[in-house]
Amino acid sequence: MKPAFSKKMGRWFLTDRVRDLVDWWGTPQSQGEEPPPVQKPVADGAELIRLPERSDWNIPSYDLVGAIAGRESHRRFSNTSLRLDELAFLLWSTQGVRKKLHQAAVLRTVPSAGCRHPFETYLVVLRVEGLAPGIYRYLPLDHALIFESAPADLAQQITAATRGQRFAGQAAVTFIWSAIPARTEWRYAEASAKVIALDAGHVCQNLYLACGAIGCGTCAIAAYDQDLVDELVGVDGDDELVVYLSPVGKLA
Amino acid sequence: MKPAFSKKMGRWFLTDRVRDLVDWWGTPQSQGEEPPPVQKPVADGAELIRLPERSDWNIPSYDLVGAIAGRESHRRFSNTSLRLDELAFLLWSTQGVRKKLHQAAVLRTVPSAGCRHPFETYLVVLRVEGLAPGIYRYLPLDHALIFESAPADLAQQITAATRGQRFAGQAAVTFIWSAIPARTEWRYAEASAKVIALDAGHVCQNLYLACGAIGCGTCAIAAYDQDLVDELVGVDGDDELVVYLSPVGKLA
Repeated sequence: MKPAFSKKMGRWFLTDRVRDLVDWWGTPQSQGEEPPPVQKPVADGAELIRLPERSDWNIPSYDLVGAIAGRESHRRFSNTSLRLDELAFLLWSTQGVRKKLHQAAVLRTVPSAGCRHPFETYLVVLRVEGLAPGIYRYLPLDHALIFESAPADLAQQITAATRGQRFAGQAAVTFIWSAIPARTEWRYAEASAKVIALDAGHVCQNLYLACGAIGCGTCAIAAYDQDLVDELVGVDGDDELVVYLSPVGKLA
Repeated sequence: MKPAFSKKMGRWFLTDRVRDLVDWWGTPQSQGEEPPPVQKPVADGAELIRLPERSDWNIPSYDLVGAIAGRESHRRFSNTSLRLDELAFLLWSTQGVRKKLHQAAVLRTVPSAGCRHPFETYLVVLRVEGLAPGIYRYLPLDHALIFESAPADLAQQITAATRGQRFAGQAAVTFIWSAIPARTEWRYAEASAKVIALDAGHVCQNLYLACGAIGCGTCAIAAYDQDLVDELVGVDGDDELVVYLSPVGKLA
């Protein structure tokens, strides 16, 4: 699908006029369908890599006002690795579960329109203590990772997938957020795309602030090669598709 | 314009495929056009209401990890007013200027694609010490407010503009972010709408966290009546249009 996307269409997309086009009695929710799972299932037998819990983190105290004042975009990183508790902190900050209400609704450290939480988090791990380089997926319900794959030339691949932005290949770990639109469409139908994008911004802002607490920096990437990055993390580009990325590294 | 907006179109919108459709040599930036101003001009003679500077705020120390852990959506507020320094802190957290690079580029407490910062911030003030109820606009370059208007029945109007979400009318102050798409289109042309929505999410996440530091709560609103809210803040809905709102109040 390659529509003639115009600036006018983009501006329309930013309004909430789409809501008036939805048949609210025909949404999957109104039709009594079960909501999609809040976390993509894990293959039978896959090994969960448990992440350190908050009580075991060694994260320095960091004042919020200073965190906001120090919010900067960073594209230069040192070669230092992240510790596993630091990575756990970043994952929890961006998608961590605060409370499970029931099977289809969990409260997280970020809000989401209609509590739909459409994202999965993939990591391109290049330098994290205790993790072999490769691609992992975060399981918020388990606060664990699963190993996905270990492509050859991973640094070059993430650079290519971000249209040659070399700092992605130099990062210790790159966060890659995919969306599973059906989670949000279950409730909002055609009025889902804008709120998914809004939600993704919420997620990434927490990453910026959390990075500051552990001497890391990040710089979000919205310009990427859709096919290459979808392929890299193994999603089909339709039922699940990458929407945003953010490489993280220690600051020199 | 009322396109037949489909789920398929929405999913396409969430990809970065639009970037491939842009004529990058034809963008206003590539054509040597001046970028739009980073802050909407103020009418001659308008009186600036200076906001307290950071050194004069009385904001309690608040640890980032606790702030993220305590991130909740709140729709019930007390009748307590916000102090002006608290409001100044929230405005700075969401759109505050950290550094002016030059006339067309300022670094803020939130990132923005291509440093374009497409937003204006309007406030529906109902209970803020030192401000008469009414609608105000934030001037990030001046860290000041200007008074815009004082519609009758403001609480009812903001409730109607948010499709009957009564907590907006009960809030002490509602943040209303408009976008001026031309700021982002100057650089990204047709590939602007998604990144504007991402940017808005970044802004609002800082509001959630900052609210926590001052005993306030918020709950973002993406479901609103486009015409009513555009009219309420006095924007034309095309060159400038509301994209997101978030009512704020003290917690009981």
